[in-house]
Amino acid sequence: MSDDDVLTRSLDDVQRRIDTVLTQESARWTAVDPRCAAFVDTVTAITTAKGKLLRPRFCLLGHLAAGGDPGEAQAVDAAAALELLHSFALLRDDVLDDSPLRRGAVTAHERHAKDHRARLLRGEPRRYGEGVANLAADLAHVYADRLTRTLPAAARAVWDETRVEVTVGQYLDIAVAAEGVADPELSRWIAVCKSGRYTIHRPLQLGAALAGRPDLADVFEGYGLPLGEAFQLRDDLIDAFGDSEDTGKPTGLDFDRFKMSYLLSLAVRRDERIRELAAAPAGPEGAARMRELLVVTGVADEVEQRIAHLVDQARRAVADAPLVPRWRTELTELTTRVAYRDR
Amino acid sequence: MSDDDVLTRSLDDVQRRIDTVLTQESARWTAVDPRCAAFVDTVTAITTAKGKLLRPRFCLLGHLAAGGDPGEAQAVDAAAALELLHSFALLRDDVLDDSPLRRGAVTAHERHAKDHRARLLRGEPRRYGEGVANLAADLAHVYADRLTRTLPAAARAVWDETRVEVTVGQYLDIAVAAEGVADPELSRWIAVCKSGRYTIHRPLQLGAALAGRPDLADVFEGYGLPLGEAFQLRDDLIDAFGDSEDTGKPTGLDFDRFKMSYLLSLAVRRDERIRELAAAPAGPEGAARMRELLVVTGVADEVEQRIAHLVDQARRAVADAPLVPRWRTELTELTTRVAYRDR
Repeated sequence: MSDDDVLTRSLDDVQRRIDTVLTQESARWTAVDPRCAAFVDTVTAITTAKGKLLRPRFCLLGHLAAGGDPGEAQAVDAAAALELLHSFALLRDDVLDDSPLRRGAVTAHERHAKDHRARLLRGEPRRYGEGVANLAADLAHVYADRLTRTLPAAARAVWDETRVEVTVGQYLDIAVAAEGVADPELSRWIAVCKSGRYTIHRPLQLGAALAGRPDLADVFEGYGLPLGEAFQLRDDLIDAFGDSEDTGKPTGLDFDRFKMSYLLSLAVRRDERIRELAAAPAGPEGAARMRELLVVTGVADEVEQRIAHLVDQARRAVADAPLVPRWRTELTELTTRVAYRDR
Repeated sequence: MSDDDVLTRSLDDVQRRIDTVLTQESARWTAVDPRCAAFVDTVTAITTAKGKLLRPRFCLLGHLAAGGDPGEAQAVDAAAALELLHSFALLRDDVLDDSPLRRGAVTAHERHAKDHRARLLRGEPRRYGEGVANLAADLAHVYADRLTRTLPAAARAVWDETRVEVTVGQYLDIAVAAEGVADPELSRWIAVCKSGRYTIHRPLQLGAALAGRPDLADVFEGYGLPLGEAFQLRDDLIDAFGDSEDTGKPTGLDFDRFKMSYLLSLAVRRDERIRELAAAPAGPEGAARMRELLVVTGVADEVEQRIAHLVDQARRAVADAPLVPRWRTELTELTTRVAYRDR
């Protein structure tokens, strides 16, 4: 079995592990009441949608690069847990942002609100739709956590810290958006907390902990934090300049939601016109104008340069680290795919 | 130290354990950003409000009655985890029900929405208030779970099952309310799932598991399920007939929210007028009329008889079980306080 196969096979195992949990739970609860099918399926739909399994990939890579045995069950469990935790975060986030689309499909809260209207149910469609999506997020959270039950204490500590960070990050994100504060340092911190650590650094650290290599925590932090920051900046650029058809979610949404994205927090400091536009969102026209301003002011270019710098920093962090050479190469190559993806 | 002191002292330990977690976390995150104070405090406020510590009490009693050592750290941790899980469930529930009051205070989502308005923040106050409350629920959930990190596998399994049950129960509760289905068996099942198991049966089972007595699972199920059902019926009666001043939350809310409470699901089967009124909530006047109908049709009396029967069933379940006599007596006496409380 080639090295590529090792990772691909483990990712298949992760997918199977998730499928098994969700299939079993759907069957078990649907037997109690058929209404439960639509509930568990809300978790299944977002989990099996065309995701990139980025967090499982980093967890498995952290494990392999640290010298862990390929296919080790605990690494597969931890990777599956991270993907379900991501489903939890996406379901919650889409309600917080009132996002209509996710991965090319109508978001869960919109779908259930629509269902409420179509079936002429009682009460308010919005409260119902958001309620079902929020509870499905809880279900994903518990299933994720259940998969970490057998992990050793050091790995559980990383897992718990990840969950607290994501939650605090989400809170600060909406708090700062509501205030309309443009504080690049804070926005950067939120980006690191909400997506950098949780997408790259913590999954790698979790994998290393499972391989019995807590000493690699610093190496993976040195790699994960800059790459996580680059990941978030790319995310902001995709939201600003991407095509909704490609990304599977509406673009320009950050501008309309008063979201003080990391990109925007840098931009408003640079130009008065951007500051004014960010303070009073103006729909699609405003988004087009914002795109134009980001280009003409040079902010977009500057952010591209920062991404290149961050990628370089991440690569250097693993260059001389005591990692399994094959997987060090994989981690190095992955920086490009993460920082220069188009959706 | 008298036996009463043993339980009181352990409950004090539980409170201290919770306070320590929340104080440390508040300090830690407030150092990152002062906005975090209001966030962690949302969990603290609901957790330290005049709660009855019912779930910790049952967990500690299960542990003691099973022969566990008084003051054992794992039992205190598990009991503290249950109380924080309850905070999670309350925060989520108040958003689902759009409840304005809880334990005599304005609910978290209302408070943060009000704050949003007062500070003239950007975006929609409702989405912001509900967002902060839902994220605070997540934070409480993670803190609760973190406290179970050191529990043995058998206890963790009970803990995980409890969380899944509560979540599925909450979903079915809103799904059935939206449909306006009057199915007493289903409403009973939801009541058992959402509050019976989670308030009494599972905490006792968790305590017994920590004392190394999984064999007591059946005994505690035999005690916990009927008493949990009685607990829920009393809850419904308090909502129907209680005084808002005493209960610290608005009464009559179930009627207005199309909530198919267990009580109501029994009542609509009994009387056509109740069925019509339940189908079209009519504010305070409708609630007064509903109260009247519940009395004149004899439904209220019938439910009181059922509560008495359930209490008897719970008492018989522990009468001859292999429990520490002192704590069997406590469990027996507690049935009355649980089933005949007034708030």
